[in-house]
Amino acid sequence: MLITSITNLTSGLGGPSQTGEDDSSSDLRASLDEFFLITNGVVIFFMQCGFAFLEAGAVRSKNTTNILIKNVMDLFISGISYWLFGFAFAFGDGGTANKFIGLNYFASSGLAKSQYSMFFFQFTFAATASTIVSGAVAERCEFVAYFAYSVLITGFIYPVVTHWAWSSGGWLTVGDTYSTLNNTSVAYQDFAGSGVVHVLGGVAALVGALLLGPRIGRFHRSSKTVATIRGHSVPIAALGGFILFFGFLAFNGGSQLTISSSGDGEAVSQAVVNTVISGSGAAFMSLLLNRLHVFGNTWSLLVTINGALTGMVSICAGCNVLEPYAACVVGLIAAIVFRTYSVLLVRLGVDDPLDAVAVHFGGGSWGLIAVAFFDSSEGIFYAQDLKSAYKLGWQLIGLVAITAWTATLSGLVFGVLKCIGILRVPREEEEKGLDIPKHNEPAYPVEAYGHGHIERLLQILENNPMVVTQGFSNVAFEKEVVDKGPYESPETQQVILKGPPEKPLPPTDKQTLPPPDGVRLTVNHTRL
Amino acid sequence: MLITSITNLTSGLGGPSQTGEDDSSSDLRASLDEFFLITNGVVIFFMQCGFAFLEAGAVRSKNTTNILIKNVMDLFISGISYWLFGFAFAFGDGGTANKFIGLNYFASSGLAKSQYSMFFFQFTFAATASTIVSGAVAERCEFVAYFAYSVLITGFIYPVVTHWAWSSGGWLTVGDTYSTLNNTSVAYQDFAGSGVVHVLGGVAALVGALLLGPRIGRFHRSSKTVATIRGHSVPIAALGGFILFFGFLAFNGGSQLTISSSGDGEAVSQAVVNTVISGSGAAFMSLLLNRLHVFGNTWSLLVTINGALTGMVSICAGCNVLEPYAACVVGLIAAIVFRTYSVLLVRLGVDDPLDAVAVHFGGGSWGLIAVAFFDSSEGIFYAQDLKSAYKLGWQLIGLVAITAWTATLSGLVFGVLKCIGILRVPREEEEKGLDIPKHNEPAYPVEAYGHGHIERLLQILENNPMVVTQGFSNVAFEKEVVDKGPYESPETQQVILKGPPEKPLPPTDKQTLPPPDGVRLTVNHTRL
Amino acid sequence: MLITSITNLTSGLGGPSQTGEDDSSSDLRASLDEFFLITNGVVIFFMQCGFAFLEAGAVRSKNTTNILIKNVMDLFISGISYWLFGFAFAFGDGGTANKFIGLNYFASSGLAKSQYSMFFFQFTFAATASTIVSGAVAERCEFVAYFAYSVLITGFIYPVVTHWAWSSGGWLTVGDTYSTLNNTSVAYQDFAGSGVVHVLGGVAALVGALLLGPRIGRFHRSSKTVATIRGHSVPIAALGGFILFFGFLAFNGGSQLTISSSGDGEAVSQAVVNTVISGSGAAFMSLLLNRLHVFGNTWSLLVTINGALTGMVSICAGCNVLEPYAACVVGLIAAIVFRTYSVLLVRLGVDDPLDAVAVHFGGGSWGLIAVAFFDSSEGIFYAQDLKSAYKLGWQLIGLVAITAWTATLSGLVFGVLKCIGILRVPREEEEKGLDIPKHNEPAYPVEAYGHGHIERLLQILENNPMVVTQGFSNVAFEKEVVDKGPYESPETQQVILKGPPEKPLPPTDKQTLPPPDGVRLTVNHTRL
Repeated sequence: MLITSITNLTSGLGGPSQTGEDDSSSDLRASLDEFFLITNGVVIFFMQCGFAFLEAGAVRSKNTTNILIKNVMDLFISGISYWLFGFAFAFGDGGTANKFIGLNYFASSGLAKSQYSMFFFQFTFAATASTIVSGAVAERCEFVAYFAYSVLITGFIYPVVTHWAWSSGGWLTVGDTYSTLNNTSVAYQDFAGSGVVHVLGGVAALVGALLLGPRIGRFHRSSKTVATIRGHSVPIAALGGFILFFGFLAFNGGSQLTISSSGDGEAVSQAVVNTVISGSGAAFMSLLLNRLHVFGNTWSLLVTINGALTGMVSICAGCNVLEPYAACVVGLIAAIVFRTYSVLLVRLGVDDPLDAVAVHFGGGSWGLIAVAFFDSSEGIFYAQDLKSAYKLGWQLIGLVAITAWTATLSGLVFGVLKCIGILRVPREEEEKGLDIPKHNEPAYPVEAYGHGHIERLLQILENNPMVVTQGFSNVAFEKEVVDKGPYESPETQQVILKGPPEKPLPPTDKQTLPPPDGVRLTVNHTRL
Repeated sequence: MLITSITNLTSGLGGPSQTGEDDSSSDLRASLDEFFLITNGVVIFFMQCGFAFLEAGAVRSKNTTNILIKNVMDLFISGISYWLFGFAFAFGDGGTANKFIGLNYFASSGLAKSQYSMFFFQFTFAATASTIVSGAVAERCEFVAYFAYSVLITGFIYPVVTHWAWSSGGWLTVGDTYSTLNNTSVAYQDFAGSGVVHVLGGVAALVGALLLGPRIGRFHRSSKTVATIRGHSVPIAALGGFILFFGFLAFNGGSQLTISSSGDGEAVSQAVVNTVISGSGAAFMSLLLNRLHVFGNTWSLLVTINGALTGMVSICAGCNVLEPYAACVVGLIAAIVFRTYSVLLVRLGVDDPLDAVAVHFGGGSWGLIAVAFFDSSEGIFYAQDLKSAYKLGWQLIGLVAITAWTATLSGLVFGVLKCIGILRVPREEEEKGLDIPKHNEPAYPVEAYGHGHIERLLQILENNPMVVTQGFSNVAFEKEVVDKGPYESPETQQVILKGPPEKPLPPTDKQTLPPPDGVRLTVNHTRL
Repeated sequence: MLITSITNLTSGLGGPSQTGEDDSSSDLRASLDEFFLITNGVVIFFMQCGFAFLEAGAVRSKNTTNILIKNVMDLFISGISYWLFGFAFAFGDGGTANKFIGLNYFASSGLAKSQYSMFFFQFTFAATASTIVSGAVAERCEFVAYFAYSVLITGFIYPVVTHWAWSSGGWLTVGDTYSTLNNTSVAYQDFAGSGVVHVLGGVAALVGALLLGPRIGRFHRSSKTVATIRGHSVPIAALGGFILFFGFLAFNGGSQLTISSSGDGEAVSQAVVNTVISGSGAAFMSLLLNRLHVFGNTWSLLVTINGALTGMVSICAGCNVLEPYAACVVGLIAAIVFRTYSVLLVRLGVDDPLDAVAVHFGGGSWGLIAVAFFDSSEGIFYAQDLKSAYKLGWQLIGLVAITAWTATLSGLVFGVLKCIGILRVPREEEEKGLDIPKHNEPAYPVEAYGHGHIERLLQILENNPMVVTQGFSNVAFEKEVVDKGPYESPETQQVILKGPPEKPLPPTDKQTLPPPDGVRLTVNHTRL
């Protein structure tokens, strides 16, 4: 996608168009384009749910709530920080182009209403870039550290790169003019963000995983073996995968940004079709590589899902200009890239629970290069001229620039967090899992299962009101709760009948009380 | 949203427009608007899935099937009752406006095909209003009681309120003219239903929860403690939350109803952006309030989700007219409102398993008031005139009217159900959970887990054909099933080889048979 | 839906329209139609997720990964085979109509970009047809067999039928002219595929289930009882159901194919409304039939879901021409058809774990017949003339032709697979479940649950480095992994402190090593 400066856009969308249409027709086009952006943005918004579940299924049950809240907050952190800063850094040119950064429309001030759909669409992309990281740092990253890097990625690191590559004045958009090419210009090409979103997200993920170090028990260094730490739920991971496949169609198709101009519909269609075909090729190849004793010997579902995603990532850059057969080839190779990166990272001792680096950096970097070869109008395989070689150069420049920028800044962020000791959770918490100490919300609370167990526990307690009184001793109710009928707790009756316990114990902290003999009370009580 | 009488709408949509366009262009606009309504309606339709899972995750495993079927049926009960009655009461003006109720188009008879998209869109709203209640009455409401209130809410209670507020002739839409304001008129303003949908749903939920009483074990009255009854699955609840976030964008954006007129696209975009920002603000504030020892001390996911939803509920009324910063403020305050209501209800001894009242009534009522202050054209903070004060008055009138109407009618419904003794399930069923006695569908049947356990059981049985014959003795097959090959049950062979059991037992009811010694046969058999 | 030959379509969509519009307006219509097709296609694409989860919830936990990967691959197998062959056979007329099969555009070569949206939309339908089968053959079908039938259904069997019924030159589309009707023509009518998609899918499912035979333990032939083999998760199945309800709205509404022409919006709206109403009627009736001792005696969720789906399947054929009341009647009857087929198949000893045959063949065949009676312009109940009787004849011809074609070809496919012994998994694998032997991915790995269990195991091992060394003895690391800090495995320190074990055991296969006394090590290790 390429966004001309927002000021121009405003007139472009809302004002009279170049074809001499009357105002009414021009309005209709503007509305249709906004409808298109919002519809696609809404589907991309839902990709957060996909990432959340792909990641939740891939971690152990003890860290499930933790990874889910991170993905929920990705949406809302982006909602605030991209609104306050991000969009301004990305597209806030305000008439005077700046090659490096925009500086306008902070907190959407001064932004025309006709640009709100664009803001929303871009916000959904920012949320995606940020969420890639949470997979790689799963099961061991501190919650405040997560907060810090999310704000910085969606508020600064990612927006600046989008300015470079997708704003009309950005240096990667502009490229350069070459006398050897009769002064035609060559620039970086990245339609839906193989580089801008996925390389960026993948690099930040890698830096995070490196600085955090592997999860306890992942690598056994003296024996040089690697333990596969299985995720706790294949269906949850598969749900995430399906939602991401669904979302990628809008992610790539929506990157056309408009639908009302001539050729828009065709470009969107081509992007969608190529996304399907590249994903299909990659899924196939991943499955086969894993089955045919190249990288494994089973029909692995999780590898297939990640493979398909890599295919879809790698086609982002060129999905609007590649022929379907080329998309298929890109996908097939993407699968190889994905597995190679995945194995390589394990060998290097990097623990990336979600293979986020392999999928997003692997797929994204391959996609940037692939478009230089397969672009059906000016790719190396078609044009075979000097310009196409320069094009490849620009793709590599973009890749290196995005990688360097992201590595430096995310290295700074994660490094500072590590130095001040708030990057990684304490060892004891990691072993026990983050859900209970951090969130007090075990993903699957034992006491919530079974048919009537908790009530049976209460009945046991009922016959021992003294113990009950101990167990429930921390009370701070201000007013009597009116008895609403027969459905109150069973203990009430007992306590009333028997009166208060004969020897009231001195008030003590609940934690230090021994549980009633032979009974483990798992009900959680809130003091009011 | 505001719907002019359907007759006018028909000509408005299908006929020539005011701008002097030719028929073809006008047709195109009509089609585009229908496309817009249907696309948004389809996404809102999916919100039922969101409610279903938010609620399913928040109940104990023993009531999971029960809450799911209620949410599935919400769609289909609305499908019938809103079609038969609801739409007629809501928008059936048929030329002669009635301030209180519409009386036309029952069972869609006489409704122009060009209005079907509007019918569908409104139906998805009705289903939403109804489904809010099921959370508050979860884990203890009888299935037939649920049927009764769902039919009445979607068929009568909700439609009448939509007529008041969203039909061109409704008394809240019309408002009143004031001589003190130079005869300008002031009316109730509720773009996407903070009041019409959420206050209504929240009040009905409160009445239901009050009349049902709390779940067994929730309040321990003598000790004045409250037991937190945890839901059984955080991921399932989070899935519901994500789907609702997704759906809310269409819920609020789609309320513009058209996309083809000038300014539509901008209004829809503004609604969507404000929904994101208000939700973000509320999510943040909820998380912080819960962490910073105000209402808790952990990073709670479920509180964050409910907080974000409250933010989105509270922005419904004004999402098309508020500036983003105002949406942020509304969201921040919504979080406080949500937690306050939540704590208050617990103190009052009301058991609302989903916090539906706090989210929907709390968020909705705050939203109605907020729009009177923050409306960027005529809110109190901007206009600071008499009219804006009157506006606040009308918002309060709307709030009170909707609350009173809903409380009265839902009180009647739940009261009658309680009097005739079919409101709440028997104590024994509540303790055991509803899934098995009511539905015979435990959410997670024990026998369906493990790798080969059931087959091992069958193998044990295989060596004891007499027991097998007892266990399977209730047979009612009319015809021999043809043997299809080697994959029949293992017992068959044994029984055939060994012949019938030596001492056939007299036919008895299966339930009274003791299970085979040392084996618990968990296979369920259906008699044909 | 009816697609004129693609060549015509190209000019129809992209070229000047008949109404004398200028190019700009015509372009806008083309873009809008492409937008419509893609948006609906994307939602239909997501139906794969619905099928996946409906099926995953209905199988035992031991076969969950297996059914999920089949549904994931359905998307990607279709992506390849429908692209390479399917679309060509279906719509590749290329100017010269062929009544039976198209032969153009293989691998989308020569296909105009303006047709890509149509290709994508049709691809999502093909994937749906294929995925119906996987439910019926669940828990026992070999993975390679699945591959074979999926490729053939999406690449040949289904495309040919779409050519018959939905391509302008197909013999079912053309129908015949009758002198008894004043030479007016009568043809087969199937708007959204009751026959083309669902009868086809249902027949292939039936053939597959028949040739595979029932699951072990399903039928106890000597005692003539049937064991209900419960699925492992009601919420997972319900999620699938909700997603399918959502998708069906796009499936039926999108079948109009265009939105920009006059009347399109109304037809789409009518299709969507009828889908809701027919689904509602069927859900109600299914629930009641199951409750009122006709087919059961409980409020069954799974039956309600399948019932609603049958209603939506049965309305496919006529959702654009039926009045809503008729849709309701069709739905009510669909529920009866569904339950009748379901019981009948069990009595016949056919094991269809998902009731796919009852839902899709039952609903689809009833839908084809229903449209002949209820079509509001020329149905038997309205027209009561000879032509409407002929129409019914053509519906039956279509039903028989699709059934015969599909039964023959899928019989061939499944028969050959059975003969060469790769249709059904070995008995031992079936008993143990497919997830571990085939995929090495148990859906819910035991070791991934609990709070810190695995780490405690490692700590036990830590105090016994010799055993550790045994357990981890198969090492193949090429290079030393650099120690990244304090979070490495606990064993490392021990081993380094204590040095290598005193008596290194000879390298043996890990499988044959006894586990450490009193400890079952459930960590999975990958050799690099």
